Amino acid sequence: MKNSVNREIPDDLMKKYDYEGFKTTEIGNPEIQRVAPKVHVSTGDNKVVDSIKDVVKETVKDGMTISFHHHFRNGDFVFNEVMREVIDLGIKDLTLAPSSLTGVMNDMVIEAIKAGTITNITSSGMRGSLGDFVSHGGLKKPVIFRSHGNRARAIEHGDIKIDVAFLGVPNADKLGNANGMEGDAVFGSLGYALMDAQYADKVVLLTDNIKSYPNTPASIKQTQVDYVVKVDKVGDPDKIGSGATRFTKDPKELKIASTVNDVIVNSPYFKDGFSFQTGSGGAALAVTRYLRQAMIDNKIKASFALGGITKPTTDLLKEGLIDRIMDVQDFDKGAAESMHTNPKQQEIDASWYADPDNKGAMVDQLDVVILSALEIDTKFNVNVMSGSDGVIRGAIGGHQDAATGKLTIISAPLVRGRIATIVPDVTTVVTPGDSVDVLVTEYGIAINPKRQDLVKALSSLPGVPVYHIEDLQKMAEAKVGKPKPLEFTDRTVALIEYRDGSLIDAIREVKD
Amino acid sequence: MKNSVNREIPDDLMKKYDYEGFKTTEIGNPEIQRVAPKVHVSTGDNKVVDSIKDVVKETVKDGMTISFHHHFRNGDFVFNEVMREVIDLGIKDLTLAPSSLTGVMNDMVIEAIKAGTITNITSSGMRGSLGDFVSHGGLKKPVIFRSHGNRARAIEHGDIKIDVAFLGVPNADKLGNANGMEGDAVFGSLGYALMDAQYADKVVLLTDNIKSYPNTPASIKQTQVDYVVKVDKVGDPDKIGSGATRFTKDPKELKIASTVNDVIVNSPYFKDGFSFQTGSGGAALAVTRYLRQAMIDNKIKASFALGGITKPTTDLLKEGLIDRIMDVQDFDKGAAESMHTNPKQQEIDASWYADPDNKGAMVDQLDVVILSALEIDTKFNVNVMSGSDGVIRGAIGGHQDAATGKLTIISAPLVRGRIATIVPDVTTVVTPGDSVDVLVTEYGIAINPKRQDLVKALSSLPGVPVYHIEDLQKMAEAKVGKPKPLEFTDRTVALIEYRDGSLIDAIREVKD
Repeated sequence: MKNSVNREIPDDLMKKYDYEGFKTTEIGNPEIQRVAPKVHVSTGDNKVVDSIKDVVKETVKDGMTISFHHHFRNGDFVFNEVMREVIDLGIKDLTLAPSSLTGVMNDMVIEAIKAGTITNITSSGMRGSLGDFVSHGGLKKPVIFRSHGNRARAIEHGDIKIDVAFLGVPNADKLGNANGMEGDAVFGSLGYALMDAQYADKVVLLTDNIKSYPNTPASIKQTQVDYVVKVDKVGDPDKIGSGATRFTKDPKELKIASTVNDVIVNSPYFKDGFSFQTGSGGAALAVTRYLRQAMIDNKIKASFALGGITKPTTDLLKEGLIDRIMDVQDFDKGAAESMHTNPKQQEIDASWYADPDNKGAMVDQLDVVILSALEIDTKFNVNVMSGSDGVIRGAIGGHQDAATGKLTIISAPLVRGRIATIVPDVTTVVTPGDSVDVLVTEYGIAINPKRQDLVKALSSLPGVPVYHIEDLQKMAEAKVGKPKPLEFTDRTVALIEYRDGSLIDAIREVKD
Repeated sequence: MKNSVNREIPDDLMKKYDYEGFKTTEIGNPEIQRVAPKVHVSTGDNKVVDSIKDVVKETVKDGMTISFHHHFRNGDFVFNEVMREVIDLGIKDLTLAPSSLTGVMNDMVIEAIKAGTITNITSSGMRGSLGDFVSHGGLKKPVIFRSHGNRARAIEHGDIKIDVAFLGVPNADKLGNANGMEGDAVFGSLGYALMDAQYADKVVLLTDNIKSYPNTPASIKQTQVDYVVKVDKVGDPDKIGSGATRFTKDPKELKIASTVNDVIVNSPYFKDGFSFQTGSGGAALAVTRYLRQAMIDNKIKASFALGGITKPTTDLLKEGLIDRIMDVQDFDKGAAESMHTNPKQQEIDASWYADPDNKGAMVDQLDVVILSALEIDTKFNVNVMSGSDGVIRGAIGGHQDAATGKLTIISAPLVRGRIATIVPDVTTVVTPGDSVDVLVTEYGIAINPKRQDLVKALSSLPGVPVYHIEDLQKMAEAKVGKPKPLEFTDRTVALIEYRDGSLIDAIREVKD
């Protein structure tokens, strides 16, 4: 069948996995029966063990679902150490359900797939060699990609039932009270991992830093933890930070950032008490800098900033330009340290951040959100998952979730090298055009025709030409030409869920 | 049948309510399937309503279970305002499942019972006119009394399934982010109410203080809340504090407190890193004062203090004599204010505090705990529920829970007026003698013979005579005489659960 963004979803898979096709970005008011974990009661006074192997042997059985968080990003030591034991113990047919997969995990995942240890994967994304491997049919069953909010939803519904969660933390006490804020390998908010801690039947913490009991603030609580494994090092502090921590000097990126700022400032949402999510990367940091100046100039303060947090954002909090930071993830050490010292930076879990099946997530209250794109098409559909070669090389992250904001801006260059960013049809629909309002490029902006209010508000900004998105697409095509259509086999290697759990697209095996 | 503390439990009720008789204080390592609430999804941006009546009409139906917390104690306005509407709407056959009932609620509960609005009650306790009413057969079905930890267990098991929780808070934002620390009617920790917020199908906050969004720190989260009702006043600040806030000057109480301190200091548990729970009331405050001096004199610091927290305890935290306070409830304004400003005072929910069916509650880690008693018998069984006249006039609170401490001290005068505290058999067994170690009276102490280690450690303290508890019982009897045996009818008016959910005793209707 074809879903409402005109994507062909294989009927056999729809049936097999009991899916509905994506229909609408509206969530409505369903009544949801939540699920709950099994608890193995323990009243002892020490959960610390030395051997990962012993814990794996004790907890992981064939066919189970195991999970990890990705807050250490490429500084993660936990995933590889645990999976080494899992593979060596000959455990088979596991479902791997981490909050996401980072590059440092790729080789181990591929080894585990080849060994038959991992036969199912659900993740926010994958990149590099693993994306390549999966795109070329390396995993028999399709990977299921879910946004951070959708993973929370799926866990709370029971669509993902985690048997054992292995969670690395920079500190924990003997019973498992832990946070992400102290120790060598700090990363700040434990936002994604809090779901696993609450819903997994068995929770195993790994840490290199056993603190005296009781360890507070306790983001993860002793009531949730079965084992605390003492390891030499949980992570490499130098590789935990994600991406750029300095403002870009690239004139194209600066132009886009300044235009994004123009769009925000001239929108009806830029007023005292507004809220925003900017994200990471040099361009996002530049937006934050422009926005800071605009807030000072216009005497406007924000009620909250959301999403992956960086130091420039926590500086705004310190400066009093933002009243609260709602923090599901920190992208640099500065942001992590700020969470430790500033009580106005509130740690939130992925459900509070973005679960659509909730009594209200933070993303529902977002005014302004700036998101990136690998591709955006003339229907404003956005792809952040597959490259123009059809190979998986991205992550949904909070993209679908934050796109619910009142003003959703996609910031993207017209072309990247010889590849158009604006295309007639994205290779993979991740975020439906219905939830996208403005596209900002270095040449100008395009406004979703559904938003005539924004067309009116933004159509006469000096230095900000407004195009029809089709014209921007043609400009891009004029620059880099029309690419040869991609060739895929009939086999589906990945399914893309929308945040409500319906299917928004499928990724097929790349034909070499 | 008779249970292991020799109490006759009516077989028909055991069967009807599917109970086992109390066997042992050991919890073991059962595997428990937790339950979860139904969530009515909402993505709107305002949950504030003006009318309690409208919310009650919308949410409460015949036969449901509704709940309240008792953190406002006798300053509570919420209970009466909500129940007024519930009764007036003619709703029938409700189960009332508050964390406890305070005196200010009594008249309304009695009215609701008489109206057929409330037909079942589970609570930590009841006092005054309501205790009298129930003891004289005013409620058809037996009240079920549960400790704070057992209530958490029962909620997490599904034994108590809360349909609608009405929770008063001194502040909340438009979506329900709330805490107990700011506003006119502050009470500090929301510990007991956090269970209701997490497990009730519908959560209604009532507040007189709508804060700007997002309101943090959020002890209760917007993801848990369905309605925020704006009321004139949620409570009377002057009546929220519980009991004495000044050290006693009563020489008998001072003697007991000083002896309690002698017992602690000379026990094997008084060493660096020990933990304790003292409780409230003038005598408990006196114990804290003696203990403070002993800690300074012996250069000993505590790892944590637990339980209902008072200002003298938060002063120890400030002084550095305690490293952490784990805070399920605050008994005075000073303690509530300290939680707001001192990050080492961690708010904990009732499950973390004391649920026995857990991956470890705080009470499991307690070294020293001082508890009170209405009666204690020669088997060290303690009654904190019924008076010597058989009438209900107490609350289990955390009594059974904290009694799991390594050194459980019952502090009680030998007699109160013409009534013996130490008796051959308590009127009602609440806490089994197995979990009690030392009784401290103004005449001397008695040590549970099971604790020969303590007999050895405490037998030659100057000024602390050690008695067999039978001798203390005889001393009490010599003072006040042998009371006439109580007369009860065959009808059971209340069941006392042990913290594991088994039945430890039943209370019968008083014969007039």
